[in-house]
Amino acid sequence: MNKIYRLNLINSMTGYKPANLIGTQSKEKNTNLAIISSVVHLGSNPPLLGFILRPAVVPRHTYSNIKETGFFTINHVHANFVDNAHYTSAKFDEQVSEFDSCEFSREYLDDFPAPFVKESKLKIGLNFLEEYEIGANKTIFVIGEIQSIYMPKEILKENGDVNLNAIHDVCISGLNNYHEVNQIGEFKYARPGKKPENLLKR
Amino acid sequence: MNKIYRLNLINSMTGYKPANLIGTQSKEKNTNLAIISSVVHLGSNPPLLGFILRPAVVPRHTYSNIKETGFFTINHVHANFVDNAHYTSAKFDEQVSEFDSCEFSREYLDDFPAPFVKESKLKIGLNFLEEYEIGANKTIFVIGEIQSIYMPKEILKENGDVNLNAIHDVCISGLNNYHEVNQIGEFKYARPGKKPENLLKR
Repeated sequence: MNKIYRLNLINSMTGYKPANLIGTQSKEKNTNLAIISSVVHLGSNPPLLGFILRPAVVPRHTYSNIKETGFFTINHVHANFVDNAHYTSAKFDEQVSEFDSCEFSREYLDDFPAPFVKESKLKIGLNFLEEYEIGANKTIFVIGEIQSIYMPKEILKENGDVNLNAIHDVCISGLNNYHEVNQIGEFKYARPGKKPENLLKR
Repeated sequence: MNKIYRLNLINSMTGYKPANLIGTQSKEKNTNLAIISSVVHLGSNPPLLGFILRPAVVPRHTYSNIKETGFFTINHVHANFVDNAHYTSAKFDEQVSEFDSCEFSREYLDDFPAPFVKESKLKIGLNFLEEYEIGANKTIFVIGEIQSIYMPKEILKENGDVNLNAIHDVCISGLNNYHEVNQIGEFKYARPGKKPENLLKR
């Protein structure tokens, strides 16, 4: 199997992946922005998210900035800027900020010490909590705790659910494919004895 | 913040999540099936996937079966059975197999020692490789290596990419929302100096 073929195939195996931009800066305030498709929910109380950093693939600056400052942001990717978001995956020189070269605007909110992406409608500020180096391939699983969430209040439902369709969040398959998303099912918490009813089909 | 509200809100923060059914069996061949939205790509060579098990939420049988036999399957969820897939999240008694109560068919392929889901068009057999207990909340990050992949050959593109749209794979938001997916962007590997062109818009 050639390398690109294998990369595309194995990257397709998870199914659809979330599309997020991770924003960081160094102590000298050099900013970095990287698209990451491996953000995963770890728990709600405390509110924890994790993501995988593959040092050979993702610019190391994201990792070194997180370790240097202890903070990073996660910013959802919307359909209207998938091209610029994908462009952050290019291996830019260290001196270049992807905010500039990929046409994103830095946004600093409430003195949080990492840059948010102004163009993103759902932005999360996190502090670094833990990291695990995976024995099998030396990737790093980085874990952060949510400190702040910014989003339009119209997309927050009464039950705490967020309407990601309304802000045109996208998902990724493989390495290079971006997709728009439309809800087809909404269920209640499932309990034994009764197959859950699709509330959208009532 | 009440508990359900917090669960819904924090589970929405990653963006869209993949929808997969994890199939396992005990040494006595008692089978188990659980929907998991935390499958993540860890690397392509060796081909590694991971997922998060929250012992308080997911039936422990998935974990104990994996540890007992060393094998599990990952099966993609399609739009036509999101209701049955969601139903596997109910806390069934230990003696009950979700294959039966949620109307899925066990499928054994090439003597692989864990059950696949017959209704799923993309099925992956994995062997257990490593686990990490996350200090902050005692969840477990389980890592497996891909041993086998089954899918219709029509969805495998020349470059190794897989057309997940064609088999109606879905994604999840929050805990209870299921979505269909349509491709809007396809890019080449990004390189500095030239913003990637959306090949679907040519």
